[in-house]
Amino acid sequence: MGRLGGSLLLLVALLAAAAAAAASPEESSAQVEDTAPAQHASVEAAAVSAQQQQQHHHQEQHILPRPLVIELPSSAAPPDEAFEEELPLEVRCASWRLAAEANNLAPWRAVPAECAPHVRDYVTGVAYRADLDLVARESAAYARAAPRGDDGRDAWIFDIDETLLSNLPYYADHGYGLELFDHHAFDEWVERADAPAIPSSLKLYKEVRELGFKTFLLTGRSEAHRGVTVENLNKQGFHDWDKLILRQAVDRNKTAMTYKSEKRKEMEAEGYRILGNSGDQWSDLLGSSVAVRSFKLPNPMYYIP
Amino acid sequence: MGRLGGSLLLLVALLAAAAAAAASPEESSAQVEDTAPAQHASVEAAAVSAQQQQQHHHQEQHILPRPLVIELPSSAAPPDEAFEEELPLEVRCASWRLAAEANNLAPWRAVPAECAPHVRDYVTGVAYRADLDLVARESAAYARAAPRGDDGRDAWIFDIDETLLSNLPYYADHGYGLELFDHHAFDEWVERADAPAIPSSLKLYKEVRELGFKTFLLTGRSEAHRGVTVENLNKQGFHDWDKLILRQAVDRNKTAMTYKSEKRKEMEAEGYRILGNSGDQWSDLLGSSVAVRSFKLPNPMYYIP
Repeated sequence: MGRLGGSLLLLVALLAAAAAAAASPEESSAQVEDTAPAQHASVEAAAVSAQQQQQHHHQEQHILPRPLVIELPSSAAPPDEAFEEELPLEVRCASWRLAAEANNLAPWRAVPAECAPHVRDYVTGVAYRADLDLVARESAAYARAAPRGDDGRDAWIFDIDETLLSNLPYYADHGYGLELFDHHAFDEWVERADAPAIPSSLKLYKEVRELGFKTFLLTGRSEAHRGVTVENLNKQGFHDWDKLILRQAVDRNKTAMTYKSEKRKEMEAEGYRILGNSGDQWSDLLGSSVAVRSFKLPNPMYYIP
Repeated sequence: MGRLGGSLLLLVALLAAAAAAAASPEESSAQVEDTAPAQHASVEAAAVSAQQQQQHHHQEQHILPRPLVIELPSSAAPPDEAFEEELPLEVRCASWRLAAEANNLAPWRAVPAECAPHVRDYVTGVAYRADLDLVARESAAYARAAPRGDDGRDAWIFDIDETLLSNLPYYADHGYGLELFDHHAFDEWVERADAPAIPSSLKLYKEVRELGFKTFLLTGRSEAHRGVTVENLNKQGFHDWDKLILRQAVDRNKTAMTYKSEKRKEMEAEGYRILGNSGDQWSDLLGSSVAVRSFKLPNPMYYIP
């Protein structure tokens, strides 16, 4: 699996170009602050340099999904070569995907090149749908069993991209996570309001509403995309949510984990009990004010800190 | 996947027997308290009844690993039958295992019967070893990059069972998680002190020590097993840990998550910075005083709340 990560030196060398292509200075800075400081020492200088090269370039657009600007050391330990040799590519890539789903990987910018076919086959095949389906059914079973109050303060949070709506048609044209994130192209896709519903999520969403939960949609999409987001959700059968929370200008410098934790804290301050939370990123679920139960939908295509 | 979970009614019917077979009254009560209260209403009466049937029976032995006494509703939502029909067993079981690793399942007492062959093939095959290997390499990469102080207060926590030591030889004789947990038989196995090291964990352990981390071994094993645990660890190449923390009588009623969170809090109070934490159960990693980064080793054989 050592070849999955590549060497740190190579990653640092790739850094400036990637940062220039994909990130605003504000985002770089937020990521450095909010991720474990532990992991950044060796790449910070390069990140700062990349920041200096571009000032206030594309600050609004590329909020979600966005790749990590700085690549962290990952799988850089000398692999057990004798064992490594025996491993079929399929096994290595399955390990990579499992590690991503269990939140074991350092932040990653793109699917490892050798695993691009594995990820493509997964998300276009039966396994992804089966995995989404099982998470939705576990969520629904919990939603039905959860003891709800009669004060209208039981809440369930849903992320949007790769949680309620699928951007697979977009990623099909962009390497299923192999390509570095192109925020211009992705914004164009978002503005078409054509993302299909994830069927199991639509079913869960309706059941959670029927059970009487307040439903809060909490997305990293920008406030500027409220109109197209509402249009897309309605077109796909999502209606009657209680709040749709999008990123404001003031949230721009925050990681998704910080931004979403703050919004959950606001919900709690308003008296809501966050019983459930559904998201495809760990940054949708972890941090502070976490839900009683969180559900991690699979997503091997991109990582948001 | 509906057939994986079985019906709630069946689970409730199975409950008293399972509780009588596997749990002390104290443990039942702790589990009811510490897991999300949401999930327990419908099985609480049965749990209380099971508690009344046995008083102070086998209170010391069966502390880890232990199955959940009360089965929670899981996958009880009507599956999408049309889709379900198409799914090969291998896909359903891979979904179940992924959901377990991503902490999406309600507490479970045993591997679903239909997935026993899948779990056996996984843990005895190359994939389990590859998954363990990748997690260890990610952990080591992070350990090397983490900014350490010069005050000797950087700490890394390791769980023991299925983290440093493997109980696979035991589980090979007990259905790889298909059988309900038999604490007498497991205690006998533990007392043989013959559990082999997980090779990638041994390598990681040594590297973390060489980097200067304080290493704390935090296990759900009982204090009564300190001697055999030390013997087993030493025999397998684990030496020089800074603390080996086992469950005391006072910890008996606590879930693993509560017990381990309390121990981490004590470490923090002593001035340690918990930079890393390695465990095969989410209850090793979640709760309070969590590590800067946590690493979830795979384990599809049992669940500890």
